[in-house]
Amino acid sequence: MTRKKRIVILGGGFGGIYTAIHLQKLMKKIPDWEVFLINRENYFVYQPMLAEVVGGTVGILDTVSPLNRLLKKTHLIIREIEEINLEKKQILISPKFTHSPEVVEYDHLVFALGNVTDFRGAPGLYEHAFPFKNLADALRIRNHLIDVLETAEVTEDAQMKKQLLTFVVGGGGFSGTEIVAELNDFVRKFADKSAHIHPKEVRVVLIHNKDRLMDRELSPSLGTYAGEILENRGVEIRFGQKLKTATPDDAILETGEKISSKTIISTVPSSPNPIIESLHLPLDKGKLKTDGTMLVSGTQCIWAVGDCASIPLDGDSFCPPTAQFAIREAKMLASNIVASILGKRRKPFFFKSLGMMGALGHRRAVAELFGFIKLSGFLAWMLWRAVYWIKLPGIDRKFKVAFSWLLDTLFPLETIQLKMAPSQGINKLHFEAGDLIFKEGDVGDYLYIITQGSVDVIKGDKVVAKLKKGEFFGEIALLNQRKRTATIRASEPTDVLALKKSDFGALVANFKELRDTFEKAEKERQ
Amino acid sequence: MTRKKRIVILGGGFGGIYTAIHLQKLMKKIPDWEVFLINRENYFVYQPMLAEVVGGTVGILDTVSPLNRLLKKTHLIIREIEEINLEKKQILISPKFTHSPEVVEYDHLVFALGNVTDFRGAPGLYEHAFPFKNLADALRIRNHLIDVLETAEVTEDAQMKKQLLTFVVGGGGFSGTEIVAELNDFVRKFADKSAHIHPKEVRVVLIHNKDRLMDRELSPSLGTYAGEILENRGVEIRFGQKLKTATPDDAILETGEKISSKTIISTVPSSPNPIIESLHLPLDKGKLKTDGTMLVSGTQCIWAVGDCASIPLDGDSFCPPTAQFAIREAKMLASNIVASILGKRRKPFFFKSLGMMGALGHRRAVAELFGFIKLSGFLAWMLWRAVYWIKLPGIDRKFKVAFSWLLDTLFPLETIQLKMAPSQGINKLHFEAGDLIFKEGDVGDYLYIITQGSVDVIKGDKVVAKLKKGEFFGEIALLNQRKRTATIRASEPTDVLALKKSDFGALVANFKELRDTFEKAEKERQ
Repeated sequence: MTRKKRIVILGGGFGGIYTAIHLQKLMKKIPDWEVFLINRENYFVYQPMLAEVVGGTVGILDTVSPLNRLLKKTHLIIREIEEINLEKKQILISPKFTHSPEVVEYDHLVFALGNVTDFRGAPGLYEHAFPFKNLADALRIRNHLIDVLETAEVTEDAQMKKQLLTFVVGGGGFSGTEIVAELNDFVRKFADKSAHIHPKEVRVVLIHNKDRLMDRELSPSLGTYAGEILENRGVEIRFGQKLKTATPDDAILETGEKISSKTIISTVPSSPNPIIESLHLPLDKGKLKTDGTMLVSGTQCIWAVGDCASIPLDGDSFCPPTAQFAIREAKMLASNIVASILGKRRKPFFFKSLGMMGALGHRRAVAELFGFIKLSGFLAWMLWRAVYWIKLPGIDRKFKVAFSWLLDTLFPLETIQLKMAPSQGINKLHFEAGDLIFKEGDVGDYLYIITQGSVDVIKGDKVVAKLKKGEFFGEIALLNQRKRTATIRASEPTDVLALKKSDFGALVANFKELRDTFEKAEKERQ
Repeated sequence: MTRKKRIVILGGGFGGIYTAIHLQKLMKKIPDWEVFLINRENYFVYQPMLAEVVGGTVGILDTVSPLNRLLKKTHLIIREIEEINLEKKQILISPKFTHSPEVVEYDHLVFALGNVTDFRGAPGLYEHAFPFKNLADALRIRNHLIDVLETAEVTEDAQMKKQLLTFVVGGGGFSGTEIVAELNDFVRKFADKSAHIHPKEVRVVLIHNKDRLMDRELSPSLGTYAGEILENRGVEIRFGQKLKTATPDDAILETGEKISSKTIISTVPSSPNPIIESLHLPLDKGKLKTDGTMLVSGTQCIWAVGDCASIPLDGDSFCPPTAQFAIREAKMLASNIVASILGKRRKPFFFKSLGMMGALGHRRAVAELFGFIKLSGFLAWMLWRAVYWIKLPGIDRKFKVAFSWLLDTLFPLETIQLKMAPSQGINKLHFEAGDLIFKEGDVGDYLYIITQGSVDVIKGDKVVAKLKKGEFFGEIALLNQRKRTATIRASEPTDVLALKKSDFGALVANFKELRDTFEKAEKERQ
């Protein structure tokens, strides 16, 4: 049986989801085709409300929708993308519950991977600044805020208290402004009800390298007004300055000035997904270069949409990286893919922005509509809520968000700190006699150290070695990025420690003694 | 200024929370005293609804209440307990945002630490069985269930699909029965709506070493009835058998039978908190032995309440480890502590159980009231919900849970898998020139490896050594469990890897080459 032809979408943000939604509606025109969507999470995060998750105005899960409910006719694959092979038209996805790599073939491929906050090359920020991009980031920031506030309440060290109560946000674009507004509201509300923290002890600093907020997104007068609102609420804005680096104790500006803080959030730099950079496709400032119909230049069946695409708009400009555009692009993209399959004419994308809105916390927002209506304050905030609530997908989400908003007005601030499993870098595993730990040809993702028992090393059908307590195996595949060169089988009940590839890599790269040991073992074993 | 006298409560379960609540009400009788509560989380988990979190019938955060809202007049300390010194009357708590140990002094001490699922000494279960005790456990199980179900939907390997769709629960007491009921409902609902999973492919096995469920908690007829309800819903119950061990691929029974499964949950063994075992206090089957007034035998100011206490009841029996008793014990304990402070007579605890209830998922439960009324089925389930809803602390929780229950009846199954930060065993840190990485006398909690830059090793005021890229420091305090013997200061912008104490310990204990390296370094450096 030959498989149906496939449209494979990579990424589950606005661009990816809406492309799949519109394709679902058009499937009857192309009955021999099916749609796949590959995404790391099994949910769609409603980005415009992410800052509210940090502030606790909406519940953690209110803003996320399960993909399987939004995309009933799409094949969902919830995995990491390991590699894209454009020649073979294959996507290699990360293994799950197995070590064997898995492959998804495509006929048409859609890139909808968005962008990422990339701190590589920004030493200090990578280690000590929180990115603010996805749901995990929002939860991490929220948990951290609760940690520092609760510690500030009980500490007797005045200097440390000051440090704990200082919050630094780098970047005054849309997301930086929204997060600083929610953060400021949250910590000040906490201080108000605390017996041990005086509101004056709280310091919130926003660092922005232009002379007004949201300079790329809003008109000068609204950007200036947004800054005034935040300053009235106690946010200290440093215009014309830049967050350069960070240590466990300080945010450090380009001027050399240090701000002692345990909470540093950076919303810049935003850069394209590394997967895209690694392919040999035409790029424009790191984004996939497409024609007006969203077909990637020089290709026949590769498309791009949303923040990872550079789509010409109306002659010499390009589509801005906003949800508003991504949603419209996706609709046009779906019909262009179908047109392309049917051999019909594709249409260039065109859309005129309806306007922009930015929430400023505590019932204030700014909005700019149709290029000439400007709103600010409470009215803009009502509009902000109404528009985003209407666009929130799923009737149950709408219920939940409305209910959260209601609770938020009725009940006091909530500071539950959801703790997941304590992160453990090294896993312990137990095998019974005869169990296979891994097989020749598997993907090498862990290094193993035997803590109890023994294992057989098998090549072909032959046992070529026996390893016992204190010995390790699995390093060859890790050091050389190759597949497993032998099968390992427990010869009695055996306990092992498993060290993740990334952790192993960090240790070996930096730890001479360890590297020597492994390199010696590798030579001996080959 | 001398400090007020202190009652310090350890633990934030039913026993600890209700002791604090009742003490708050009695504080005007003892104006020179204050109440402290030390707990790992900043919230109280409403245990009776934990199984519903796994099933998704209630929202993740509906069942947890922030401690600071329940305990407005209690000093909350959200930390791990590191050590208890009964002689000095001190509690050593884990450091946060600093490396210096912190100490909390007490005058009266209350143990309310509950019990823990302890897989030590149960090889295989420790590594591969999920415990089901707290909120993190519930979330971990829920996320895992979604993982296996979604993988089962797309896998093409029939054997693996069978393994993924087999679920094993060990222990048919209260919590084992509740979790298997919710799990069974959840996976069968998922299978029903999935196009790729046939309901007959789902296998749920409950292993219980007695001849009926909840044999210690309910009368024989109700226990038998509970088993029948579950079997009607498709749960396969193995009476008279025991889960012995597990591997990454199998649950293994004492008979040697292997059940191929990726999901193994064990609710036994339940054992006392390790902190209690390490003290030289009188124990009775691992619980703190108290007199009828909950004073720990042989002490003057140490009390115990709830599941970690062995409290005589009515002559020759002991209080059972249930929420119902813990709540009543706590009230009596609070008044006994106050009586003891005022030199008045303490009263022995007495309470007759009102009955027991157990939920069986999908609108079924069993209940036994006042020793002679027995209810089962839908009516018992309504009663179960009503009773626990009334007891749920906080009006806003009540709202939220009721709303979740409403949504659950209105909307289809929800399978969002909340992913937190990817767990990372090895942290990367960045320091600027002159920054202190740690100080002499700090608690040693990390080993550091320099990946860039260099550091000075300082004893007293003198620089005694300089370490550079590829070298490590911090191992002395870790190997010997001592405090830091020197101060480390970055001499230029420096990047280090930090390896957690527990991970470091596991590596060094089992990895000869590494141990040799560190032992050699330690000798040289002393």
